[in-house]
Parts: sequence; C-alpha cells; structure tokens
Amino acid sequence: MTKPDEKETVGESAPFAYEGLDRVIHEKARLGIMTSLVSHPEGLSFGDLAELCGLTVGNLSRHLQVLEEAGLVGITKGYQRNRPHTLCQMTPVGRQRFLDYIGVLERIIGDAAKATRNADRTKASSRGLRFRPA
Amino acid sequence: MTKPDEKETVGESAPFAYEGLDRVIHEKARLGIMTSLVSHPEGLSFGDLAELCGLTVGNLSRHLQVLEEAGLVGITKGYQRNRPHTLCQMTPVGRQRFLDYIGVLERIIGDAAKATRNADRTKASSRGLRFRPA
Repeated sequence: MTKPDEKETVGESAPFAYEGLDRVIHEKARLGIMTSLVSHPEGLSFGDLAELCGLTVGNLSRHLQVLEEAGLVGITKGYQRNRPHTLCQMTPVGRQRFLDYIGVLERIIGDAAKATRNADRTKASSRGLRFRPA
Repeated sequence: MTKPDEKETVGESAPFAYEGLDRVIHEKARLGIMTSLVSHPEGLSFGDLAELCGLTVGNLSRHLQVLEEAGLVGITKGYQRNRPHTLCQMTPVGRQRFLDYIGVLERIIGDAAKATRNADRTKASSRGLRFRPA
C-alpha cells in the first residue's frame, strides 16, 4: 500500500512505528489462522481451520495462500477415507515469526498499560477508564 | 475487502475469529498512532506524531482521516507563533475503543502463550522455542 515516495522513515525517534509488526501475520484473519495453528502443532484440516477461525472457504483459501507463499504454513493435500483431505500446519519458520510478532504485541500492550497508568495517576478521583476493567 | 457473499460466519465455535479486533485500529500505522495518542492525552502536534510513528506526512494524513471519520481522533487546526499548528487528540470514544481492542490483543497473547506452554510440556527435553525469549 505504501507508495515508493511515501516510504516510512523510521529511526530510533519512532518508538511507535512498531517495525516488527509483520504485515503478513498482522492481517486480522491471518492472525486468527496463525494463532489457531500454533495451538494445534499436529496440524488442522481445512474444514476445522475454517470453523475455528469463522472464515468461509473462499476467505480461508485466499489467506492460506499468502501464508504458504511466505513459508509460514505448509499445506498437504491427500485423501482420508477416500475423500480429499487438506492438512494445514505451521512451519518452524512460521512458528518463529509468529513468536516474534507476539513479542511486538506484548510491547504495544505494555506501552498502552504504561500510558493508562500515568493518566490514572494524574487524576484526582478514581473516575475514568482503567486499563483492565474488572 | 470482504465481498458480500464472502461474509465471515462466526459463532461460538470460532474461538480464533477475534471479532473484537477492530479493523480501523488494527491497521499497523493506525495502531501506532492510537498507542502514541493514548500515551499523550494532552494531544500531539502533527509533526511530533509523524516522528513518533515513523510516518511520512502523506501517510499520517491519510490514516488520521480514517481515525477522525470513525470518531476516534479529534483534529484541531490553529496557529502557534503565527505558524499553522495541527493538534491531534484521542477522543473519549477513541480511548474506549482502543482499550477494548487492547483487551482482544491480550486474549490473543494468552491463547498463544497457552499453546506454547502445551507444546513445551509434550517435549521430553528443554529444547525448542519458548514463548518469551530471555
């Protein structure tokens, strides 16, 4: 989406650039697929994955293709009880990239939590939103 | 991006759909902008915001417009020392939507952590990746 002349210029002065936020994984549907697959290291059938992620067959196919092309997910087509069966599994590279990505999410949550604590501290009363509602 | 006939069909059987993952906030650059603004409740000038987020003027303008149209960010144009000055500030609605969004990120991290703990438990040795590298 970024035009060549609109490149993000990031240095140490850009603490909110979150460079490590891998766009291949960050897309909402693909984030669900990756979290689903990291929770099932033995792999998931195409149908189970669609159901767990609340995705249509078309949407899941499209996003799996992106993940496969990036080398994050492996797809094995075969047969089970004489019916076509597609097994989707996270690759070791995919697992590492996903864990790196989760590390950046943790940093964002930390930044947000710090901001909200600071804001609460400057309030005289206990009114207002807290970071983690009870 | 979702075509009308490709709507996500989500029920209770879709634990990895992460419905609350607000697409307006989830986009990488906008997530940086929102985290930056929640950390500066007094608001930030356009220039400071661009620097903190590592965004060009063009990119920041485009994303701020999306956030403003969604009612999450308020933009006040004025003058400071006879020069145009634009102040960007999170709205109360924006703050609430951002905190809700952060709650979903926490759920994703929790799901990933649980998956990784389970995977580690099934390994006989202590080899392999850990969720939070030291």
